[in-house]
Amino acid sequence: MAFYGVRVEYALHTLLNLSLALESTAPSARDLADFQRLPLAFMRKLLTRLEKAGLVAGTEGVRGGWRLGREADTITALEVAEAAQGRTPLFECREIRARCALWPEGARPRAATSGVCEIHRVMLAAEAAMRRELARTSLADIALEVEAKRSQAAAMAIPAWFSDRYADRRKP
Amino acid sequence: MAFYGVRVEYALHTLLNLSLALESTAPSARDLADFQRLPLAFMRKLLTRLEKAGLVAGTEGVRGGWRLGREADTITALEVAEAAQGRTPLFECREIRARCALWPEGARPRAATSGVCEIHRVMLAAEAAMRRELARTSLADIALEVEAKRSQAAAMAIPAWFSDRYADRRKP
Repeated sequence: MAFYGVRVEYALHTLLNLSLALESTAPSARDLADFQRLPLAFMRKLLTRLEKAGLVAGTEGVRGGWRLGREADTITALEVAEAAQGRTPLFECREIRARCALWPEGARPRAATSGVCEIHRVMLAAEAAMRRELARTSLADIALEVEAKRSQAAAMAIPAWFSDRYADRRKP
Repeated sequence: MAFYGVRVEYALHTLLNLSLALESTAPSARDLADFQRLPLAFMRKLLTRLEKAGLVAGTEGVRGGWRLGREADTITALEVAEAAQGRTPLFECREIRARCALWPEGARPRAATSGVCEIHRVMLAAEAAMRRELARTSLADIALEVEAKRSQAAAMAIPAWFSDRYADRRKP
């Protein structure tokens, strides 16, 4: 099973959409859900997690909506992943070295499990390398790459879609 | 859930034990299972996976047993992890960008999903960093660290345990 699941994927896409939507026409949870054809309840839960981490901020009222909680160049892919899914270890060490047959079960010498197991240490280094890489990339970096690949027309389509929805919401 | 599970942990410990056991008293699957207090069936399955990857080699007969398939300094932690568990992606991209509301469902323009999604690209870089780190460490490196922390007596205990088992097996 993949380590980072569907919540992480939708969280990154949602924040990317927020970074592309115009500041003046902040999307509602329903707009964000509809744009990605997601159930509203799923989007609300996702926004709650992202809000707790300070990555989005919502305002109420007729001009209200969701915006990024901070500038896109200060939000890293790592923060988004861990806000969406929680921080899970890459490797869960069960200290199996403590169970070896050199001593009776439950009577292991203290030295046998002092310090971090060397296998665990290797895995912690791999986890650190992975997290370092995700911390190097900001939402702004991703948005820039996406924009670079899009035509001018396509680049306008996302903010325009959210602006239309914003206008619809304000109709009597 | 952790990315690398219990099979990876036992695989690394098992290979470490094989690297410490004397060449002349190669452990049986039962020896390896008993040493870690594991069910024999679990150990047999693990050894089959490791053998397929060329990391262990078994010989039959009264002097038979399991040995490392290659020198410990040529076996990396990455190879062990992927032999034990298979190669799973860190992040499974579901191409959710294809489902967005800009076009009717099932009628997306081709350009919308051309190339690798930028979010997927970030995750692939993180996975590469993680795998690079695991590929940097060999079984011999881990064994050296384990040995450095052990007392002389403790260092002798593991090969001695397997030697005793080997002698037991050969008793009439």
